[in-house]
Amino acid sequence: MKKRLRDYGIIIGKGTPGPRNKITDVEGVTVGHSTVDTERSKTGVTVIMPCRDNPFARKLTAAVCVQNGYGKSQGLVQIEELGSLETPIALTNTLNVGLVHDSIVEYMLKVGEKEHISITSVNPVVGECNDSVLNDISLRAVGKGEVMAAVRSASQDFEEGDVGAGKGTVCFGLKGGIGSASRVVSLGGRDYTVGALVQSNFGSTENLVIGHRPVGMELTDIEPAAVDRGSIMMILATDLPVTDRQLKRMCRRAPVGLVRCGSFLGHGSGDIVIGFTTANRVETEKEPPVYSMEVLKEELLDQVFPMVAESVEEAVLNSLAAASTVTGYDGTTKYSLTDVYLSRLPEQGTKA
Amino acid sequence: MKKRLRDYGIIIGKGTPGPRNKITDVEGVTVGHSTVDTERSKTGVTVIMPCRDNPFARKLTAAVCVQNGYGKSQGLVQIEELGSLETPIALTNTLNVGLVHDSIVEYMLKVGEKEHISITSVNPVVGECNDSVLNDISLRAVGKGEVMAAVRSASQDFEEGDVGAGKGTVCFGLKGGIGSASRVVSLGGRDYTVGALVQSNFGSTENLVIGHRPVGMELTDIEPAAVDRGSIMMILATDLPVTDRQLKRMCRRAPVGLVRCGSFLGHGSGDIVIGFTTANRVETEKEPPVYSMEVLKEELLDQVFPMVAESVEEAVLNSLAAASTVTGYDGTTKYSLTDVYLSRLPEQGTKA
Amino acid sequence: MKKRLRDYGIIIGKGTPGPRNKITDVEGVTVGHSTVDTERSKTGVTVIMPCRDNPFARKLTAAVCVQNGYGKSQGLVQIEELGSLETPIALTNTLNVGLVHDSIVEYMLKVGEKEHISITSVNPVVGECNDSVLNDISLRAVGKGEVMAAVRSASQDFEEGDVGAGKGTVCFGLKGGIGSASRVVSLGGRDYTVGALVQSNFGSTENLVIGHRPVGMELTDIEPAAVDRGSIMMILATDLPVTDRQLKRMCRRAPVGLVRCGSFLGHGSGDIVIGFTTANRVETEKEPPVYSMEVLKEELLDQVFPMVAESVEEAVLNSLAAASTVTGYDGTTKYSLTDVYLSRLPEQGTKA
Amino acid sequence: MKKRLRDYGIIIGKGTPGPRNKITDVEGVTVGHSTVDTERSKTGVTVIMPCRDNPFARKLTAAVCVQNGYGKSQGLVQIEELGSLETPIALTNTLNVGLVHDSIVEYMLKVGEKEHISITSVNPVVGECNDSVLNDISLRAVGKGEVMAAVRSASQDFEEGDVGAGKGTVCFGLKGGIGSASRVVSLGGRDYTVGALVQSNFGSTENLVIGHRPVGMELTDIEPAAVDRGSIMMILATDLPVTDRQLKRMCRRAPVGLVRCGSFLGHGSGDIVIGFTTANRVETEKEPPVYSMEVLKEELLDQVFPMVAESVEEAVLNSLAAASTVTGYDGTTKYSLTDVYLSRLPEQGTKA
Repeated sequence: MKKRLRDYGIIIGKGTPGPRNKITDVEGVTVGHSTVDTERSKTGVTVIMPCRDNPFARKLTAAVCVQNGYGKSQGLVQIEELGSLETPIALTNTLNVGLVHDSIVEYMLKVGEKEHISITSVNPVVGECNDSVLNDISLRAVGKGEVMAAVRSASQDFEEGDVGAGKGTVCFGLKGGIGSASRVVSLGGRDYTVGALVQSNFGSTENLVIGHRPVGMELTDIEPAAVDRGSIMMILATDLPVTDRQLKRMCRRAPVGLVRCGSFLGHGSGDIVIGFTTANRVETEKEPPVYSMEVLKEELLDQVFPMVAESVEEAVLNSLAAASTVTGYDGTTKYSLTDVYLSRLPEQGTKA
Repeated sequence: MKKRLRDYGIIIGKGTPGPRNKITDVEGVTVGHSTVDTERSKTGVTVIMPCRDNPFARKLTAAVCVQNGYGKSQGLVQIEELGSLETPIALTNTLNVGLVHDSIVEYMLKVGEKEHISITSVNPVVGECNDSVLNDISLRAVGKGEVMAAVRSASQDFEEGDVGAGKGTVCFGLKGGIGSASRVVSLGGRDYTVGALVQSNFGSTENLVIGHRPVGMELTDIEPAAVDRGSIMMILATDLPVTDRQLKRMCRRAPVGLVRCGSFLGHGSGDIVIGFTTANRVETEKEPPVYSMEVLKEELLDQVFPMVAESVEEAVLNSLAAASTVTGYDGTTKYSLTDVYLSRLPEQGTKA
Repeated sequence: MKKRLRDYGIIIGKGTPGPRNKITDVEGVTVGHSTVDTERSKTGVTVIMPCRDNPFARKLTAAVCVQNGYGKSQGLVQIEELGSLETPIALTNTLNVGLVHDSIVEYMLKVGEKEHISITSVNPVVGECNDSVLNDISLRAVGKGEVMAAVRSASQDFEEGDVGAGKGTVCFGLKGGIGSASRVVSLGGRDYTVGALVQSNFGSTENLVIGHRPVGMELTDIEPAAVDRGSIMMILATDLPVTDRQLKRMCRRAPVGLVRCGSFLGHGSGDIVIGFTTANRVETEKEPPVYSMEVLKEELLDQVFPMVAESVEEAVLNSLAAASTVTGYDGTTKYSLTDVYLSRLPEQGTKA
Repeated sequence: MKKRLRDYGIIIGKGTPGPRNKITDVEGVTVGHSTVDTERSKTGVTVIMPCRDNPFARKLTAAVCVQNGYGKSQGLVQIEELGSLETPIALTNTLNVGLVHDSIVEYMLKVGEKEHISITSVNPVVGECNDSVLNDISLRAVGKGEVMAAVRSASQDFEEGDVGAGKGTVCFGLKGGIGSASRVVSLGGRDYTVGALVQSNFGSTENLVIGHRPVGMELTDIEPAAVDRGSIMMILATDLPVTDRQLKRMCRRAPVGLVRCGSFLGHGSGDIVIGFTTANRVETEKEPPVYSMEVLKEELLDQVFPMVAESVEEAVLNSLAAASTVTGYDGTTKYSLTDVYLSRLPEQGTKA
């Protein structure tokens, strides 16, 4: 595995990460990638599996926050209406969302078949970032094969950086990609987990902040990205017993992590948050007319929100730390944060 | 009591009303009025008490739907965020919302004092319609005395028509006012209730429909209101175990009832729905970190939505049926539906 | 061409239709279909071309209203954020949205190529209804060929009923499909047009209302659809000089037309409205820092809203009137309104 | 005047402030305060006058962003619907919004009378923070006299800190209050201004960040506020020719400034942004059916958003810098940032 931010001695926030410091610290969540790395294609797909069993049969409570809707994510409208998630969440490049959507439909039909559930309507959730700086995006290189491979490879110990949907993304003018982090929240004597996974593709170089250090202004020897273009997909997972409304409030704090890294939520950046909890599942078929749901006392969200912010902040920075330098289809090179900064830090460097 | 629509043999919809066919069929809900009827003032206040005990100490799950936000209702923002109601709901005239808001604050401080709860923040919910056709609205005639009187008078058997906040409102060019209706919903072997109360102040005469009958086009001997001005406040109460999201979906069906009466949701009409359920209370202070909540199976809302629509439709028509002809401060007269139509129906009239 | 509602002497509303009484009365708008009619497939795609030139280069002011978000429409998030439309709008079946989305991407890349515009990000707008009662929806029978054929066939004089995306839809238990209507709005001495196109797939038989006549209750010799399932896509076009906010207000009145036909906006029905105006185009590349936009005086929307409602109402009824009886892949038959009702009306039938 | 952040040599961001570095750098905008400072009352009202002439007769394009709706602000619903502002904006304490609302109604009626405009409906915009830590909030000490005094005193050179609605607020455990800042934006060879004014009442001490310096962690000799309680009102003014949608996008970037100061957008903090532009006025009465409006090219917002963020960030810090230490009605003391930090900086201190 690639080194992550903490491997350089940089600690983000005050919370305690889960054992993996990844979204997969939330029990049941796994992540898989399929990367397309050819001469012209630097792209891929990343799949977040929200549970081990069939999410269609037992839907997960879910919510979204569209901080900036300049993006092509799919499936958000139904989450808003019904407060539930019934498929894996797939991330890919902007022009590939249609094919990935269709692949998730096919995957769900197969899952249904195996369990003898007839599915005639299903709501795939697909997010995207525009990786056209490094990837020939017009090729739409991600198809059924890649999506199924990503699903099959899903595990708790997934790679970060320039893999899957992060293969071609650019963040703060550096090589971005997939990053993740998690935090433990202790409430009423029990430990819960909040995890974040991002596909990072935003920010101008000069604005990059790590901890409270304005690192971007120190990166004078690379060609900077001047404009905050691109997008970021932020996926939040938790096992907290929250309602869809409470989950939405959590999602609305994800951009706090972004801002701490130096984003100003630029015009061209589709900033989308999708959250789900594994705690409140809905068994559509079997449940009685009225069923019981666990709800977190509202005030306790004040202990949860900072952990959401920290998870997202560290996930973004991990996406940078774990990415390697990549040269794109037209010769453009985006450098890794490790090459231009982290590896030059003194041993056990800056403690932010 | 004034005669209501059903007293003329006109039946709206297919559902069964509760025993009173009013919002107060929802256990615990009471309604009180205070009417200001002077030479210049034709206005008042109507208070919907959502429960017998203190709503601040045990908040009610609530939701709103702003169908048309051209209005001055207060308290909606916090309901949207927290999904809860913590005060009575007061209705009054457009320019009087500030004073009524302040009066509800005072009432809640007193309630708090009595129960030794220190209240330093509270979210009164105040709705309004513009009754300036009949009422000299600049006088803001509703003050603390009126609000407290309305609260004190709250009961299950409240008046409809030109009383309280309905004293001066105009609907379809006729005398509008306060109207109410209810429906029983049987789910899983248990009866639940949906109730509606409206303050009606919208519609052009020619568009009035009763049942499926375009009555407005028959009313050729009155001076018609040509434009769909004004507003309507719609309050929904239920004892169904729904979440705030489900309640919001219910609220979004209230305008169905309006449209059936002939509204096209005009530009100048603030169409606001506020809903609450008495089933899912939140004890802010005492509850443990995680508590249990009853949730209705989502699909069953299909049996609830038509009852919401019917309740609102019949509530609007009851507001017309129960109103008397009123002459305003400047001599303008608005006729009652009874005078111009219902009383002229043949015995056991039109069964719509 | 099939007979339409007016051919049976039934007039909806008070407004004057445009010359075709279709959405294509809005100058520049054309509509094309491609129908897939095989043993197992009863489906297709319908494409609304919003303008004759490239919508990507000169975007159209646009808005959406999600009345009920239980649906899989794509592209709505960006319209909400930017208030603009940059592609044709395609309608198809629920499980086919991904492939149709990808086909629109391909179409737009080709359009860009021809005009030497490099497109690396584009937001296709794809709506859907679930036609699985008649269509084997798991086959996703609509591909690139069908989408391109629909685009090529786009014209002002398009078919309605069981064609294109309407081939397999069911409405009020009868055969639904594609329907359209338009209205002329005269403001300040100039005529403007409002046009609607629907893909109808909702409603229970007993609730069908035509004009003010509760026709559904008379249809006792067909097997009724008991539940208001399915969805409806409503597309609004206009040449009124409105902003995206004003257009959104127009979209929010489209459901008025639905309700008049007998919908109660059921739980399972994704009720989605997408509106655009041809009047306020945005030339992304060439425009100066500040450009001028024409805006309709807000109050005049009161003359526009009823025309939106009427257009949608008549479009729904035209979708029924123009549809033929269709037998589906599993033998289920859905009858045409013409067969069970309209053709039985006396000469120059009911004037509603 | 009190010293402000820049007087200590601390520069926020990269932009250039306007001549006053206040919201009143936007031509036509003035601000007035009325402070209630008695033994039990530490509160007041602050009024932002959006223009020199009557805002009701010529409404201003406006927008809101409810980042966290746990608050009692009034008038937001109509701004959302109509995209316009027609009164001054008043800020006060949480329980005083009703009386202040009524006072603004009275003020507007007088303005109308003077200009022979009959006003029967008006939408006052009133924001609030909860100052009950220092102020006996149950007294609702702000009445008509105070509101009228604030209006009369409105000028371009208003005070900041513990004045008006900021008399009793607490921010990061220190004395908060009213703060303001502005930035110049040069687009297409012309200078525009973005200005912010805040009523600051949020944040836990340890999270305070000034520039990139985590000052809060250094403040070990004061009793810290542990919880991010309270609220913040953020008012944005500009003379940029933007639509209400574009203005809303600007408002959504105001929280970026908050986060940079150390907020995590806590549960109990009503974070509300209200924005208006003086560039696009709407003459309701006189305008023709269609009128012309200036619109900023969307992409240029990328130069505007960072200035919004900076203005809000510096406005919050100015609210701290300009506030004096205040002891409340029950003996609680909240210290000024100047006393505990700024005055101890070395000459021409930290350049952040």
